[in-house]
Amino acid sequence: MPHIPLEEHLPGVTGLLEYRRDTALPLRELTQILLRGPSTLTQGERELIATIVSHRNNCAFCSASHTAAADVLLGEETTSASIKKDLINAAVSEKLKALLAIAAAVQISGKNVTTELVDKARLEGATDLEIHDTVLIAALFSLYNRYVDGLATVAPADPLFYKGIGERLKNNGYHRLAQGYDHLKKKS
Amino acid sequence: MPHIPLEEHLPGVTGLLEYRRDTALPLRELTQILLRGPSTLTQGERELIATIVSHRNNCAFCSASHTAAADVLLGEETTSASIKKDLINAAVSEKLKALLAIAAAVQISGKNVTTELVDKARLEGATDLEIHDTVLIAALFSLYNRYVDGLATVAPADPLFYKGIGERLKNNGYHRLAQGYDHLKKKS
Repeated sequence: MPHIPLEEHLPGVTGLLEYRRDTALPLRELTQILLRGPSTLTQGERELIATIVSHRNNCAFCSASHTAAADVLLGEETTSASIKKDLINAAVSEKLKALLAIAAAVQISGKNVTTELVDKARLEGATDLEIHDTVLIAALFSLYNRYVDGLATVAPADPLFYKGIGERLKNNGYHRLAQGYDHLKKKS
Repeated sequence: MPHIPLEEHLPGVTGLLEYRRDTALPLRELTQILLRGPSTLTQGERELIATIVSHRNNCAFCSASHTAAADVLLGEETTSASIKKDLINAAVSEKLKALLAIAAAVQISGKNVTTELVDKARLEGATDLEIHDTVLIAALFSLYNRYVDGLATVAPADPLFYKGIGERLKNNGYHRLAQGYDHLKKKS
């Protein structure tokens, strides 16, 4: 049960975004810019950064949601599974692997992002902006995971629920996340 | 030296906010709402939440900056020192102490925010919104600390520098943070 009263039909972060809409607005905007705005990283690659951080923070709702979004964007489910299971041998480009290693460092602490990790990413072709964005996306999901679990929000068990979220995150992005749940509200 | 090219006269988060202004805008807005918007927690109390998280993440720039902001807002330097040194015996109200304990839990993981910690805060008079905001402020500084250290930004050693930041954060808030440094830019 959540630590504060949230609407029951809105699990995970969705209930929090409804609870305080004024703070939700800049949070959604930041997420939309970073994960859906113009970038030399694909939307699927950026969802994988969100996924690895959420997975390593054991945030069930965020991990399942962003895995689903990555899967829908990539059109397959093996890549997200492989980066969660074994990053070193994951089925991704060397550049993305190096960026995911930076994200995994950020998940623990900003101080864990060593010059070696950054040099490796650059060697594999990562730009300054890609390195910046990787750190900021990983930091943003360090926020989300703490927000979602710190208030003990509910994570549905049904895998189909997250498939729906993945589709919605692909089609609507992050601006309209809460509105995307209005149909659930009417039903309840 | 920072991992990406940042303007030398803009240390810590200030260089990052200049580096990517489009992501800086919603970040500053979120911070302004949470730390300076209407609240039953004082601005000084909210800066103490930012301080304890930054301190426990060993983020030198953020810890010194928000300590300075709290000190200016509270008009003394003993409270911020006491919550960093020994939270259990810190010279703050029992309610704030319980909220700071929640923030300290969030710093480690959202999952560390137990029902006991929340019940204690509520027993001491904390409202649902205060509990929500404490978790979100602590999560936001989990982001900032990782952003600032993950890109290896510079933290000036001079205590006077942070005194200046504290004054600026009191007088201007977070919307105008970067603009507050324009005078430094012109000089350099």
